[in-house]
Amino acid sequence: MRVDLGFFQIASIVISILAFGVAFWLYKWVASQPSSNKRIAEVGKLIKDGANTFLAKEYKTLAVFSSVVAILILLFLPQPIWNGNVLENIIMALAYLIGTVFSAVAGKIGMDIATIANQKSAEAATKGIKPSFMAGYRGGAVMGMAVVGSSLLGVVLVLMITNNTTALLGFSFGASSLALFAKAGGGIFTKTADISADLVGKVELGIPEDDPRNPAVIADNVGDNVGDCAGMGADLFDSNVASMAAALTMAASLDQASGGNLNTSTVFCYASIGLLSSIIGVFTANMKEGGSPTRALNSNTYVTTAIYGILTAIATWAFGLEWPIWFASTIGLLVGVVIGIASDYFTDDNKKPVHMVAKACETGPAFTILSGVSYGLLSTLPAMIGIGVSALGSYKVCDYYMGEGYGMFGISMAAVGMLSIVGMIISNDAYGPIVDNARGLVEMGGLGDKALEITDSLDSAGNTVKAVTKGFSIGAAGLTVIALLGAFISEVNIAALDMGKVAAGEAYIKGFDVMDPVVFFGLLVGAAIPPVFSAMLMLGVDRNAQRMIKEIHRQFREIVGLKEGKEGVMPEYDKCIEIATDGALKELIAAGLFAIISTLVVGFIGGVHAVGGFITGNIISGLIFALFMSNSGGLWDNTKKYIEAGNNGGKNSEAHKNGVVGDTVGDPFKDTAGPSINTQITVVSLVASLTSTLFLAFSLFG
Amino acid sequence: MRVDLGFFQIASIVISILAFGVAFWLYKWVASQPSSNKRIAEVGKLIKDGANTFLAKEYKTLAVFSSVVAILILLFLPQPIWNGNVLENIIMALAYLIGTVFSAVAGKIGMDIATIANQKSAEAATKGIKPSFMAGYRGGAVMGMAVVGSSLLGVVLVLMITNNTTALLGFSFGASSLALFAKAGGGIFTKTADISADLVGKVELGIPEDDPRNPAVIADNVGDNVGDCAGMGADLFDSNVASMAAALTMAASLDQASGGNLNTSTVFCYASIGLLSSIIGVFTANMKEGGSPTRALNSNTYVTTAIYGILTAIATWAFGLEWPIWFASTIGLLVGVVIGIASDYFTDDNKKPVHMVAKACETGPAFTILSGVSYGLLSTLPAMIGIGVSALGSYKVCDYYMGEGYGMFGISMAAVGMLSIVGMIISNDAYGPIVDNARGLVEMGGLGDKALEITDSLDSAGNTVKAVTKGFSIGAAGLTVIALLGAFISEVNIAALDMGKVAAGEAYIKGFDVMDPVVFFGLLVGAAIPPVFSAMLMLGVDRNAQRMIKEIHRQFREIVGLKEGKEGVMPEYDKCIEIATDGALKELIAAGLFAIISTLVVGFIGGVHAVGGFITGNIISGLIFALFMSNSGGLWDNTKKYIEAGNNGGKNSEAHKNGVVGDTVGDPFKDTAGPSINTQITVVSLVASLTSTLFLAFSLFG
Repeated sequence: MRVDLGFFQIASIVISILAFGVAFWLYKWVASQPSSNKRIAEVGKLIKDGANTFLAKEYKTLAVFSSVVAILILLFLPQPIWNGNVLENIIMALAYLIGTVFSAVAGKIGMDIATIANQKSAEAATKGIKPSFMAGYRGGAVMGMAVVGSSLLGVVLVLMITNNTTALLGFSFGASSLALFAKAGGGIFTKTADISADLVGKVELGIPEDDPRNPAVIADNVGDNVGDCAGMGADLFDSNVASMAAALTMAASLDQASGGNLNTSTVFCYASIGLLSSIIGVFTANMKEGGSPTRALNSNTYVTTAIYGILTAIATWAFGLEWPIWFASTIGLLVGVVIGIASDYFTDDNKKPVHMVAKACETGPAFTILSGVSYGLLSTLPAMIGIGVSALGSYKVCDYYMGEGYGMFGISMAAVGMLSIVGMIISNDAYGPIVDNARGLVEMGGLGDKALEITDSLDSAGNTVKAVTKGFSIGAAGLTVIALLGAFISEVNIAALDMGKVAAGEAYIKGFDVMDPVVFFGLLVGAAIPPVFSAMLMLGVDRNAQRMIKEIHRQFREIVGLKEGKEGVMPEYDKCIEIATDGALKELIAAGLFAIISTLVVGFIGGVHAVGGFITGNIISGLIFALFMSNSGGLWDNTKKYIEAGNNGGKNSEAHKNGVVGDTVGDPFKDTAGPSINTQITVVSLVASLTSTLFLAFSLFG
Repeated sequence: MRVDLGFFQIASIVISILAFGVAFWLYKWVASQPSSNKRIAEVGKLIKDGANTFLAKEYKTLAVFSSVVAILILLFLPQPIWNGNVLENIIMALAYLIGTVFSAVAGKIGMDIATIANQKSAEAATKGIKPSFMAGYRGGAVMGMAVVGSSLLGVVLVLMITNNTTALLGFSFGASSLALFAKAGGGIFTKTADISADLVGKVELGIPEDDPRNPAVIADNVGDNVGDCAGMGADLFDSNVASMAAALTMAASLDQASGGNLNTSTVFCYASIGLLSSIIGVFTANMKEGGSPTRALNSNTYVTTAIYGILTAIATWAFGLEWPIWFASTIGLLVGVVIGIASDYFTDDNKKPVHMVAKACETGPAFTILSGVSYGLLSTLPAMIGIGVSALGSYKVCDYYMGEGYGMFGISMAAVGMLSIVGMIISNDAYGPIVDNARGLVEMGGLGDKALEITDSLDSAGNTVKAVTKGFSIGAAGLTVIALLGAFISEVNIAALDMGKVAAGEAYIKGFDVMDPVVFFGLLVGAAIPPVFSAMLMLGVDRNAQRMIKEIHRQFREIVGLKEGKEGVMPEYDKCIEIATDGALKELIAAGLFAIISTLVVGFIGGVHAVGGFITGNIISGLIFALFMSNSGGLWDNTKKYIEAGNNGGKNSEAHKNGVVGDTVGDPFKDTAGPSINTQITVVSLVASLTSTLFLAFSLFG
């Protein structure tokens, strides 16, 4: 049965709306959970207000930034306005703005529910692990559904309205430029607060985590929301849109060549089935009283993966789609799972790496660091091989069975496959900060040891699952950007044809030969961007934390009775939130601009070939650093928790002290620098694709 | 004036022999310096014996390894013996063995003089900074002259005798396979001993560095010799040979095409002028009483650079060589200096990074690590840009003015230029471990505080200069391997022609397109090798240090009177040396084989295109990690020294304690993992070039 493209587009819209419906239903469900504790409501409100303060300031800054970019797009893209078609430039600028708005709204929705679900989950913890888990999980799922629903809906609508894949790249660029800042800014905020709170609270004063006397405690909990929730949502929104944009760009040009719309239909078909599978997965998610939350979360992932594989196979058969493409998307998803399992190995507290690092903690802080760094570096190998194998496999199969041009499309479909269950991934991931917050609320609300134990175990599961989901999102970003490299080439060739640089039917560039010194130059410089970018973010956290520590010290010194916990004496939480916010915004702009401007500089020096090398170098070193930093950080975090659970001397031992050092180093690794690299790679690729015309028109050595 | 190739070859031989003469004279000069202190002679002998024990064991292991490789070469390379020319295989295997022997001998000579010069420098420190500096510096220069003399001589002789550039690659592979193990093994040895001695001695017991009660103190001093001296010598021997081999391979094929031997002549002309410049530089090296040793060492480098530039310009004019090639070699050398200066900025204790990290040390160990990692990551940018610019510049100029094929030759000549003053570089670099040892001998021989102060300042200069020389050698390795990529392509094309895969005049491969998924697969996997390789080495140090710490604890526990320093009670130094030796040999084999075997696996999976990608990925991530690790390590080391000099609280402050943590993390970064990556990259490139025929004959996706 062959059906029309319109059918799949309508299906995508329907399923997106279904996802919104589910999100709404889950939202209502979470909101209807009982809440009666006044103290929790109070603290919860502080967190909510803090998060909104940050988001408001951030979005205001980004609105200015986006407006400037939109004006630049209007003037120069896809072609300088005086050369080209004014309408195209307007469409492009609008698509860009819509991308930023969609991304911002998805982040905001996720954060709103997170700041409700944390309270519900905390209160439910007094009743048992199951209701507490469900409140946290379903809160996360609201975000998952909202993000994926809006990304699919956005892509369908932009394409239906403009019928122009370049506009799709503009939409995607809007999403990723916002994600870059949301992720980096949120990452700096959250780690500033986390590190400062821990260093002064736990290390210097020996007061427990989440102790309400700590002036940074609210900022810390706000950070979980703005960094891990809103930032991560924007990040995956961006990856998802980028993977669809890359696939659709190639599908459209293949469809144009072959006549018909089979390829475009396939993309929408698989993407909507992915969302449908995630919806089913979210509803079947459950855990038994006394069960393991980690297992519950991971089994969701496997169930969703299986559903996706089966449903897409049925659809491929029923609608007469191409099996090689099905193979590509499935291998992408499977490799995603494998990468996730490998990340899990390096960060799971039942596995050798955590035990070895815990043992190193007994010897001293230096060994804690050295062993954590070493395992983090080792962890890059399976993921790199996995990404390489899935790219190679999907390319070769599609190229062999379907012909020229389909290989690269196959890679893009592997990325779409890997991200197909992103709704599930986000739900699992957003669950983490929610229960982390719930733990804080239980502590601050004084809900008792049993509730604390429950939220502790939920929080720890969140950490482990995070490693898996991060592996997924890094792998998917890798494949997506390889596919975007293909999109970059088609953009360049179209532009070269328009500019009369080549005759019709000829390609201006076919690839990027590393033996071409201009490409090699790009490779070398591009590879240096992710380490420098992450260093800028980490130094930003460092500087910001120093400021906040000074403020915490001041409060403990100047506010009488605070240290002693005198009744009615409260720290000035908002001062810390302010420092974290202002610092984060200041630091993120520098790092973000650095990535974008270096792309432009390399392009104007070496032209499109240098940019091709630049993107490639950027992808390769970006993947390595993202994997290394995320996994080392997760490893240290879980090592600390493992020691706190009574191993290698347990709490307050020498090993524990060193474990805290490792965790503190790992925090900006895994929550600021590592995951921001993902977005940085995507942004660089999109900037390159969008500005290719400019480099064609002018470059020093191009 | 056009002269014959023979002239330049003879000149190279003459200048090589001159270098040996200079080395011999310097050796005599150092040996003739007064030595009378019995205690120093005793300890000096312990160090010498320990170093020889290690070297004997290491060379025995490597002899077995090399024999196996030689047999494999005999059977399979350049072609399986049953297909090809038996004589060629014999020449290849012999060239390989000669390469290993030359490298081993150069290492041994360097170590012998180092274990004499350390004593002379120590004793001279009682007379003043100048004689102490001269003894250390001229000791280092013996090694510099021996290494460069033998590498140039080896290359000339192999080429004159075999008249075959593939044999030259075999020679180079011999040198680098030995260097890989010497550098990695020595690096594991030295850091095992250093870390263990520091952790138990300085941190746990609070006894001074180099205290003779410490059972690991001799092993620590031995380590300076085997790791920093012999290992580093083998490393630069290898880089130097590899750069000449790559340049000569391309020069020979260009000469063949154009008739004549201008290009080959140019390589020998510039290489011998480089050696001559280094000889002059070594003799003009001097310092005033009361002067700065750092300035003395650095000004040597600048003087030698200037001499090289001028002499090669004169030679180019007089012998009618090509100016574009002169430009390439000069830009290479200049960029080397720039990279050195950039490395210096990130590690010099007068500059911002050291001050910032020292400030972070006040806050805690986690910030010490985070800031050091961040600056290390930032430091990669200038070097990557520098390497990129020199590659691009030398290629474009030679390609534009001299025609096709000359671009890649230009890059190889940039590498030759960067390494031209390697004699100088090695002299400066070997100076470091000698005066480090001298400091230990002054402490153990009880030569007084003034002598200690002098050797301390000499040691600190050694550290700073090391950063510069490391920047040089990393940059040179980068350019060399880019050139080797060119050599790899010519090897493949020759083999493809022999195998009848292409007709005469056709090229089997011209380059490596990153859009080819097989190349991309290679890129991804190749990029993961350096981080994994360095992790293996660091974990090796970690494991080995744990064993040694246990042994030190045992000695302090069981040897009565040791801790109290009772007269006549001596620790069992040899036990620690044994642990360091055995552990190092065990760990290095795994890491070395991993690099070699992954090259073969990728080749058999993806064929020559995958290998091209693999080498490229390997170069790019290898350069980043080598730069990052070397510079972070140097930064931490100098930060610790900066604090010890009385800043940020001075010795025994909280900042100092954290500075020691940073230094301990940095030690395996900068002396084990970082610099071994250089060699790993070269080995992978050479293995790939030599085995290209096998991948052509069989591969899964090739």
